[in-house]
Amino acid sequence: DVSFDPKEHQHLRYNPLRDSWVLVSAHRMKRPWAGQVEKPPEEHIPRYDPKNPLCPGNTRANGKVNPDYDSTFLFENDFPALQPDAPDPGVDQHPLFQTRAARGICKVMCFHPWSDVTLPLMKKQEVVKVVDKWVEILEELGATYPWVQIFENKGAMMGCSNPHPHCQVWASNFLPNEPALSDRCQRNYFEKHGEPLLLEYARQEAERKDRVVVENFAWLAVVPYWATWPYQTLLLPRRHVLRLTDLTTEEREGLADIMKQLLTKYDNLFEVSFPYSMGWHGAPTGPHLKEDNSHWQLHAHYYPPLLRSATVKKFMVGYEMLAQEQRDLTPEQAAEKLRNLPDQHYKTRES
Amino acid sequence: DVSFDPKEHQHLRYNPLRDSWVLVSAHRMKRPWAGQVEKPPEEHIPRYDPKNPLCPGNTRANGKVNPDYDSTFLFENDFPALQPDAPDPGVDQHPLFQTRAARGICKVMCFHPWSDVTLPLMKKQEVVKVVDKWVEILEELGATYPWVQIFENKGAMMGCSNPHPHCQVWASNFLPNEPALSDRCQRNYFEKHGEPLLLEYARQEAERKDRVVVENFAWLAVVPYWATWPYQTLLLPRRHVLRLTDLTTEEREGLADIMKQLLTKYDNLFEVSFPYSMGWHGAPTGPHLKEDNSHWQLHAHYYPPLLRSATVKKFMVGYEMLAQEQRDLTPEQAAEKLRNLPDQHYKTRES
Ligand SMILES: O=P(O)(O)O[C@H]1O[C@H](CO)[C@@H](O)[C@H](O)[C@H]1O
Ligand SMILES: O=P(O)(O)O[C@H]1O[C@H](CO)[C@@H](O)[C@H](O)[C@H]1O
Repeated sequence: DVSFDPKEHQHLRYNPLRDSWVLVSAHRMKRPWAGQVEKPPEEHIPRYDPKNPLCPGNTRANGKVNPDYDSTFLFENDFPALQPDAPDPGVDQHPLFQTRAARGICKVMCFHPWSDVTLPLMKKQEVVKVVDKWVEILEELGATYPWVQIFENKGAMMGCSNPHPHCQVWASNFLPNEPALSDRCQRNYFEKHGEPLLLEYARQEAERKDRVVVENFAWLAVVPYWATWPYQTLLLPRRHVLRLTDLTTEEREGLADIMKQLLTKYDNLFEVSFPYSMGWHGAPTGPHLKEDNSHWQLHAHYYPPLLRSATVKKFMVGYEMLAQEQRDLTPEQAAEKLRNLPDQHYKTRES
Repeated sequence: DVSFDPKEHQHLRYNPLRDSWVLVSAHRMKRPWAGQVEKPPEEHIPRYDPKNPLCPGNTRANGKVNPDYDSTFLFENDFPALQPDAPDPGVDQHPLFQTRAARGICKVMCFHPWSDVTLPLMKKQEVVKVVDKWVEILEELGATYPWVQIFENKGAMMGCSNPHPHCQVWASNFLPNEPALSDRCQRNYFEKHGEPLLLEYARQEAERKDRVVVENFAWLAVVPYWATWPYQTLLLPRRHVLRLTDLTTEEREGLADIMKQLLTKYDNLFEVSFPYSMGWHGAPTGPHLKEDNSHWQLHAHYYPPLLRSATVKKFMVGYEMLAQEQRDLTPEQAAEKLRNLPDQHYKTRES
């Protein structure tokens, strides 16, 4: 009898945040790749581009002029998917044709006045400013909206159409699918085990160590046991924290610190500005602020598409879309690779 | 008061097959696109390539030689994600670290001996052969495996690494996430309404007409009311059919016919070989063959990535991955566009 080796033998792992399974088939990395290669991420971006609508002092599509900002800069998306005043759709009585009103607001937030820096290349205090701004936005929009999705699409590969470092905020009058599912899963776990799912998970991972990428006094970044994307990570506070707005000043500093560390590892993996989509999940807001949300634990998901190199991504296609997500290396292999990379960014290393 | 117009006003639609919602923001098509453009699909593929491991008579990676096949050709995937004999993973007692055994088999099926044809360009009788083979495979693998996923990744954009027309079959000892969810949703609907969800849905769409793309005596292809991908379609039989193996000879012919029609429209949309991932969902097999599965209705999902042109796809990224899927044109707009395209393939039109 052969004994089980996760690197050689396919198996399923359970994702307790989505109540689903992922197929881990690490032996598949051996197959050669003759499929599509992507353009590598652009490495030479000018610090200031007079045509870029996100740069300080420039004019945007709607004719508005950006201030000459010197830190973060927040404005309303000129092409918002959510607007505050859409009329109510009528009601179709048939259960297979259900519609609901959707209202909200979409904002864009620049991280820095320069186009040629990214979070890992910014000074720690500049990243703290980004965190502070996230807190401010959540406080403001979360006062009324039940869900405020802060997310960053980084790199052309992730549909980002502007290289200037920025993220987006879409606030809505509804709880979207993913947070609704996560809420359900965390609630069930809490009811069954009497403690928050992700608090216990962070504790376990801090002890088990093999999926930890970087950590500090307040935060932990791991490749989750149930990761689907090759180098997916989960960023977790060590303390029980419901929302970004509940972080202490030290924890905000710690967050800037661990983000710089994690994103430096990411960039160092293939020595390119690493593409990903990331976003924050915390307890719902608006009307939910008055409810007991002890089952929630704040966290950020990082979903990077690359698999083999700076130009070969993981295709989440046929089997993944129709049946189940499948990954080609174990989360432990991914974590080890990232963990062992240098702490210094490849662009700032002396040569 | 402005009255509601689905083309102008964002709203949510319910997907009864996945118990989730999609955000429809059709006004967003107005924004300009300055992001990533893809390489257009390759249009000049040689009929026979001595280096292509899928062509008749050629040698594959594992040294096996393909027969000189003249219709369909089925063989085992040389780099399978599922193997029949993986050892059982041990059991971790912790609820956050759950593992399960995964066993199965992965096959590849060539549609035709020529590399330069695709389903819409094949003769109808050749497509019937493809359908017949699907039935045969399902009969064979479905005898023991609970789930047999037949799927096609078409085009480099969808991770397909070989232009030769082919699909894949992954059979597993477990019911994957997507069919498990679909099973639950169809079961709940059946219990509540006393008829299969998708049978009633096809009836409704055949009457309402505005989401129908093509139809014949036995089949209906619609852009579903809850479509997430811009030109997503759902292929449905008119009769209550549990699995591909239950189709009559006439229905198989009708299927070949409607597939040719639908895929011709797809290719004609941007006058390229249209990329997509597609796959079949029918009642589970193996041990489930003995159960009552009246709530199931056979169907195929087509998920094409393109949005604006042959080179600009819809990016399902930040908001979609972290919150909820969002689409930029209404399903009715997409259906109308496809429906009004010529029935003759652009490659066979006289000029
Ligand atoms: O098996 P293939 O065609 O090499 O691989 C393709 O389809 C698989 C199943 O959807 C995916 O897991 C791969 O990411 C994709 O590249
Ligand atoms: O708003 P952007 O950056 O133009 O658009 C990008 O992010 C959105 C939110 O994830 C997606 O819906 C778009 O497909 C993507 O291109």
